Amino acid sequence: EAAVRAQADTVRRLKQDKADPDEIAKEVAKLLEMKAQLGEDEGKHKFVLKTPKGTRDYGPKQMAIRERAFNAIISCFKRHGAEVIDTPVFELKETLTGKYGEDSKLIYDLKDQGGELLSLRYDLTVPFARYLAMNKITNIKRYHIAKVYRRDNPAMTRGRYREFYQCDFDIAGQFDPMIPDAECLKIVHEILSDLQLGDFVIKVNDRRILDGMFAVCGVPDSKFRTICSSVDKLDKVPWKEVRSEMVGEKGLSPEAADRIGEYVQLHGGLDLIERLLQDPKLSQNKLAKEGLGDMKLLFEYLTLFGITGKISFDLSLARGLDYYTGVIFEAVLLHQENEHVEEAVSVGSVAGGGRYDGLVGMFDPKGRKVPCVGVSIGIERIFSILEQRLEASEEKIRTTETQVLVASAQKKLLEERLKLISELWDAGIKAEMLYKKNPKLLNQLQYCEDTGIPLVAIVGEQELKDGVVKLRIVATREEVNVRRESLVEEIRIRTSQC
Amino acid sequence: EAAVRAQADTVRRLKQDKADPDEIAKEVAKLLEMKAQLGEDEGKHKFVLKTPKGTRDYGPKQMAIRERAFNAIISCFKRHGAEVIDTPVFELKETLTGKYGEDSKLIYDLKDQGGELLSLRYDLTVPFARYLAMNKITNIKRYHIAKVYRRDNPAMTRGRYREFYQCDFDIAGQFDPMIPDAECLKIVHEILSDLQLGDFVIKVNDRRILDGMFAVCGVPDSKFRTICSSVDKLDKVPWKEVRSEMVGEKGLSPEAADRIGEYVQLHGGLDLIERLLQDPKLSQNKLAKEGLGDMKLLFEYLTLFGITGKISFDLSLARGLDYYTGVIFEAVLLHQENEHVEEAVSVGSVAGGGRYDGLVGMFDPKGRKVPCVGVSIGIERIFSILEQRLEASEEKIRTTETQVLVASAQKKLLEERLKLISELWDAGIKAEMLYKKNPKLLNQLQYCEDTGIPLVAIVGEQELKDGVVKLRIVATREEVNVRRESLVEEIRIRTSQC
Repeated sequence: EAAVRAQADTVRRLKQDKADPDEIAKEVAKLLEMKAQLGEDEGKHKFVLKTPKGTRDYGPKQMAIRERAFNAIISCFKRHGAEVIDTPVFELKETLTGKYGEDSKLIYDLKDQGGELLSLRYDLTVPFARYLAMNKITNIKRYHIAKVYRRDNPAMTRGRYREFYQCDFDIAGQFDPMIPDAECLKIVHEILSDLQLGDFVIKVNDRRILDGMFAVCGVPDSKFRTICSSVDKLDKVPWKEVRSEMVGEKGLSPEAADRIGEYVQLHGGLDLIERLLQDPKLSQNKLAKEGLGDMKLLFEYLTLFGITGKISFDLSLARGLDYYTGVIFEAVLLHQENEHVEEAVSVGSVAGGGRYDGLVGMFDPKGRKVPCVGVSIGIERIFSILEQRLEASEEKIRTTETQVLVASAQKKLLEERLKLISELWDAGIKAEMLYKKNPKLLNQLQYCEDTGIPLVAIVGEQELKDGVVKLRIVATREEVNVRRESLVEEIRIRTSQC
Repeated sequence: EAAVRAQADTVRRLKQDKADPDEIAKEVAKLLEMKAQLGEDEGKHKFVLKTPKGTRDYGPKQMAIRERAFNAIISCFKRHGAEVIDTPVFELKETLTGKYGEDSKLIYDLKDQGGELLSLRYDLTVPFARYLAMNKITNIKRYHIAKVYRRDNPAMTRGRYREFYQCDFDIAGQFDPMIPDAECLKIVHEILSDLQLGDFVIKVNDRRILDGMFAVCGVPDSKFRTICSSVDKLDKVPWKEVRSEMVGEKGLSPEAADRIGEYVQLHGGLDLIERLLQDPKLSQNKLAKEGLGDMKLLFEYLTLFGITGKISFDLSLARGLDYYTGVIFEAVLLHQENEHVEEAVSVGSVAGGGRYDGLVGMFDPKGRKVPCVGVSIGIERIFSILEQRLEASEEKIRTTETQVLVASAQKKLLEERLKLISELWDAGIKAEMLYKKNPKLLNQLQYCEDTGIPLVAIVGEQELKDGVVKLRIVATREEVNVRRESLVEEIRIRTSQC
């Protein structure tokens, strides 16, 4: 028992010190085990009441906001003719192996309980490529909205979780250049406009332009990927630091770094593309030339879509993942001018994607390639913004769609309420009642105020005799007697905007 | 290399013998490793292209069926005023411990990668109880539709998977007896009627009646749970076998077993409840009396709902899970008369649930109870039936909602197609185009036939000059010229039933 008390003290101390929650959890578990052995809490274990690190519950209010965002995204995907698929939450471990480079360490593995070795999916792109190869599909436009899992350091207030949704739209198939790529950018533009998240910019680049640039700047082939990773940091870190990483840590020559430094400062539109196509060095590089040619075509299509105003061809955009082979892009929200500066924390990228023409081939036994391009919407960050905005506003969000509360003014009318609500349900009306035998009318009306139910159908002795129901409009307190056989129609009309 | 060849032979043999997939997977993994060490397939690993055991992908067609079923279920839950919540796919391991009895061995654990010990959720009920206790919620009506995980023996053709959806509706709170319980049964009745799955029956019983029955039959208290498990098998196994399990394996006296045998054959309605309330032994037992009294009340409410025709008070219904404390129920589809007997495989229970008044208290530090009653719809089995039915029927199911294909009759009109489709998207029209510079008109029309797109908007030189678009109705092959500024409205009208 002394040992138990000592352990309890340890836990208390850790909690006071605000220690790492994982550590606390471990010590608590130890404490519980000791207590259990003592038989002290027989059958009455004390639980650590929490969700796992980096995860959260969604209550009804959060769900209402989440569904709004999903609806905007799904309607857009459907507007563009996408089918929908779903895959299991876990994959064979080897399916994920060798796809994510350094980030592989963030993959959640399942315990070996006999049978196959499994891992939770890290994104939706690799399962999609596995699905295409497995079913020999060479042509599909699909969306997939599901949770993915990363053992990353969570930053929950900024919308960074270990369990989070991705909303992916991808076009797979051999098509004429840049038409599907342009559609992906149009989709990002539509969704971000639709969600009214404020001003944004979609940065675009091409892996071939980056690789060509590295080549003409004198980066050795073997250092392309690692220098690319350094460039990827430019959105968070100033060029000086990136340069010193390139030269110091990664052993690039200062001259090569300086040449890169000139390029990565460039961003613009068609004019910049034209200028680079004339660049004496870049224009000599086959990859860069291909990439720039396609970038020009892309901008022509984006002009036809009328969205170049929010697109920036940006040579500093690199993207983390290994599997991209062509166009890459990333959408960033810009600071709101009318917000307090101290609150305007950049949420960073809210959407990203690109072309990955080699990934499906990695799964095909004969290496047959299926070119793909796709976009992933980062719903958690968008959701954080919507949630903060709703909290700041006065808007009261409804979490149910109930049209009418079936109520009674007198006692002993439970049976009548049950009969009426059953009629309404069977007619497709969304109806609730209080689960009490004799609820007070005031409580029933209060329930409507609290939950936003617009109508109350009140049964009473007199109304029953007269074959009517008293319909009360909560907002105006107006009351009308409606013949029972017209009630369904009356409720429909009065809530038709719902 | 000889070892590699030997291993390859092993794999081949296992595949020929249709051995356990897990075993094959293991041997294949071994083979791949040996090959990799030989450097034979450097950078070109051969993958086992499959989803994990007991899981499946949902292609667009399956998703269309799945969404139909979900829509029926969600509209019903919303009709009854439920809010919606979501919880993480995994919980702290200790959250699940001690909730599922013997079935705990079926829980998927995550690998210990440092930090907390986690398990995939086994159902949605325990996470719901954890959510209530953690947020001190004493009153909520919510639904939750999400995947749960069980390392069970899959029987995929009968809709039994290791990853599967549950659609749960629960009412938590202290209310007058049997009102929420009756609503849960009404919900099952509405959903099964709505989905038109054929005739069904909802069996109802009460844990208190079972326990009272065990007591008056002379079952010792310590054997209540295990004898309850035996009773639970009566839907699959004849009484004789269940009896011999009780007497042989579980050491019950033959007399007690025979007394149970008389009770568990009983099923009926209000009449049976009345009879049992007069039963000289049962009526002496406090628990049984309580249970029967509430059962009578339940049947009165179900009569008001007009659904007693499909409800059977069945003393053989026991339900597996430990946490039930009152009413329990299970919906079973009945064999269709007009189906071939050999095909009419019973899919078993498609919905089940009951009252669990103690579960939330297990999570509350002070043991405060929140009474709950809920129902879980087994969507995978329902989905299997819908899928088989659709395959048997001639119905062609659409997997997109595209209203119009933007096409061209001549070459060099890609830009015009892009401009038009962009206008349509911005107006909220669901539109597609082929990703080719110069697609043949025939191919474009064929695409509409294949995917069910009802309209084609054809741009051509002449139409552009005239300021019109040719709108073709795919079903009738009729073609009309529509002024460009009226096109959106015309498409809306012609696809308004979509």
